[in-house]
Amino acid sequence: MKNISILGATGSVGTQALDVIKNQDDKFKLVAFSSNKNFKKTIEIIEGFKPEYVAINDKNTFNKVKDYCRNNHIKIIVLEGMDGLIEISTLNEVDMVITSIVGMIGLVPTLEAIKSGKDIALANKETLVTGGELVIGAAKSYGVNILPVDSEHSAIFQCLQGNPLNSLNKILLTASGGPFRGKSRKELVDITPEQAIKHPKWNMGKKISIDSSTLMNKGLEVIEAHWLFNVDYDSIKVLVHPESIIHSMVEYKDGSIIAQLASTDMRLPIQYALNYPNREKCIVDRLDFYRIKNLTFDEPDLTNFKGLKLSYEAGKAGGIMPTILNSANEAAVDLFLNRKISYLQIIDLIEECMNKFKNEKLSDLQVILVTENKVKSFINSKYNI
Amino acid sequence: MKNISILGATGSVGTQALDVIKNQDDKFKLVAFSSNKNFKKTIEIIEGFKPEYVAINDKNTFNKVKDYCRNNHIKIIVLEGMDGLIEISTLNEVDMVITSIVGMIGLVPTLEAIKSGKDIALANKETLVTGGELVIGAAKSYGVNILPVDSEHSAIFQCLQGNPLNSLNKILLTASGGPFRGKSRKELVDITPEQAIKHPKWNMGKKISIDSSTLMNKGLEVIEAHWLFNVDYDSIKVLVHPESIIHSMVEYKDGSIIAQLASTDMRLPIQYALNYPNREKCIVDRLDFYRIKNLTFDEPDLTNFKGLKLSYEAGKAGGIMPTILNSANEAAVDLFLNRKISYLQIIDLIEECMNKFKNEKLSDLQVILVTENKVKSFINSKYNI
Repeated sequence: MKNISILGATGSVGTQALDVIKNQDDKFKLVAFSSNKNFKKTIEIIEGFKPEYVAINDKNTFNKVKDYCRNNHIKIIVLEGMDGLIEISTLNEVDMVITSIVGMIGLVPTLEAIKSGKDIALANKETLVTGGELVIGAAKSYGVNILPVDSEHSAIFQCLQGNPLNSLNKILLTASGGPFRGKSRKELVDITPEQAIKHPKWNMGKKISIDSSTLMNKGLEVIEAHWLFNVDYDSIKVLVHPESIIHSMVEYKDGSIIAQLASTDMRLPIQYALNYPNREKCIVDRLDFYRIKNLTFDEPDLTNFKGLKLSYEAGKAGGIMPTILNSANEAAVDLFLNRKISYLQIIDLIEECMNKFKNEKLSDLQVILVTENKVKSFINSKYNI
Repeated sequence: MKNISILGATGSVGTQALDVIKNQDDKFKLVAFSSNKNFKKTIEIIEGFKPEYVAINDKNTFNKVKDYCRNNHIKIIVLEGMDGLIEISTLNEVDMVITSIVGMIGLVPTLEAIKSGKDIALANKETLVTGGELVIGAAKSYGVNILPVDSEHSAIFQCLQGNPLNSLNKILLTASGGPFRGKSRKELVDITPEQAIKHPKWNMGKKISIDSSTLMNKGLEVIEAHWLFNVDYDSIKVLVHPESIIHSMVEYKDGSIIAQLASTDMRLPIQYALNYPNREKCIVDRLDFYRIKNLTFDEPDLTNFKGLKLSYEAGKAGGIMPTILNSANEAAVDLFLNRKISYLQIIDLIEECMNKFKNEKLSDLQVILVTENKVKSFINSKYNI
């Protein structure tokens, strides 16, 4: 039995991770999880999976859950805030932590989990985008596995199996191109949050859907791939593939390319990460090529979707530049979702911050948190938030 | 240094194998090779690679080569016929035998090579089609590796790396569909040998080009895949993919599909087989997806290209039925190339033989050779050959 803790269990990936665990309840036990404001789902998970711990970030929800559990005589330890997140990431009885929490909040508990020797099923891309150097270094020191859960990185990871480490030549990171592929800058001016969160292929959370539409998601994935697979930025190529059937490819030294294909269902990469190196029974739709008929490819549009270009620049600059990029993006997407800025301003703000803030060496975790604060305060103060 | 012997070095695959060896002359040495009637190429190989042995099947060419070497003071042992083939397959100093000889003639020397503990780079599909049971059994007993060289089987082999044996669900064997894809039976009546040997994607020998156009090549590959990868016939699905970019795929239990893609150049799978599990420098064109744009898929047409259906039937029947199928095909293609029969008669003759000859258990090698003889005599006598 593998004991699991999920950071961010009520979100899109968290919910699907729970489904994978439920489908293999002979192999996995949910020992702990975290949530934020979703009281209903939190209670459902507590009652459905009977974990021993829950950590709740939102103060108000924390109190409500605590009361509910006491009143209903549910035996569970209810924890609060970042301390709670760290506690459920480092519990003795936990074997693997699934980091499906969204945003930079995942960084600290992930690092603590690694230091406690837990294997990580990584779905929180900000962890590697901002703290890649520290996280990968810690994973090596503490001998823990970081198993990618993102469909693209899981694909790359699957394509790398059984091949010598030194034989990789290039990563071909596929991108659906988002809902606005082919649109000109002019056509992007009036995009609303409602339009931007409708992804053509994946059913995902709001933040990642916006990121997907701006290609920032792909940019963050490029940086994540750099750290996960120890590959130069020039050897990571983004390939637009609107059908999202090929989830990514690896080109080897000899010219051979290995690709991973599957339906667009996150439960597959989650299941693979949890069972690695084994493969278990199919819980997703199988692909039928007699019906698929056609897979297409294109170059990404770096002019109208400049976020991808900025991500490469931030990644190559290293230090805290990816943190500046990511913090600016988080703050800007928030403003956009709250209708404080227009769609194109998201990327403009990121670029402004990358120019405004000076790069620094990534000496420790503190510099990341300080940078995040500075960048977000700067953007929010611009719009009187 | 790995010492190599090539059975059938002057053919299409053999020539490309020599190119791979030349490109890695620090790792591979050609110790022996065989040829048939091509005097000029035989001498070129002798002078270019300075092997210690050559085995020549054709009596007349054997004498010419022997004379040439004597007159030019070339130090080489010139052998003749099947005895020669067996000798160069079992030499003490040989580490690996590349079986790029065409037709059932490859079976006996391949078996002898296995019994002498040589690893096999297998390009002769008839070996497994007719003697799969014996060959795979011998490979297990003698602990030798059979490394596929066919682009499709190399693709499957590459896709299987790093995955547990029991996790395979299905093989998706891709097929270009040949030059006559989409044609009706009526349109196939008057096909000439010249039309049939023009393959749209691969540059290959005559026999395999005809087989490719009738889908018999794919049928033989299905049987080969069954033996190589120990997979039921119902778990091998043929997928028409006219661009021949995806060389085959493996669908796993969990619904994940791993594919291998590359340009259509046999030197890549040959190089992989010779260097397995390592990958060496690229000697083929790399794929560029910004230019490929489009990959398409379709169902095979089992009505107008019945050879594929017959191959499944022969494979499932087992015993000597695949030998009947293959021998009939070899004889029929020969007759077609010599304009003794029409294009559609190739498959008609195979079907006739499968109905005429009774299936038997594959008790030993002898029954294969006897069956081959019976079937070929029957077909040839029909046309007074």
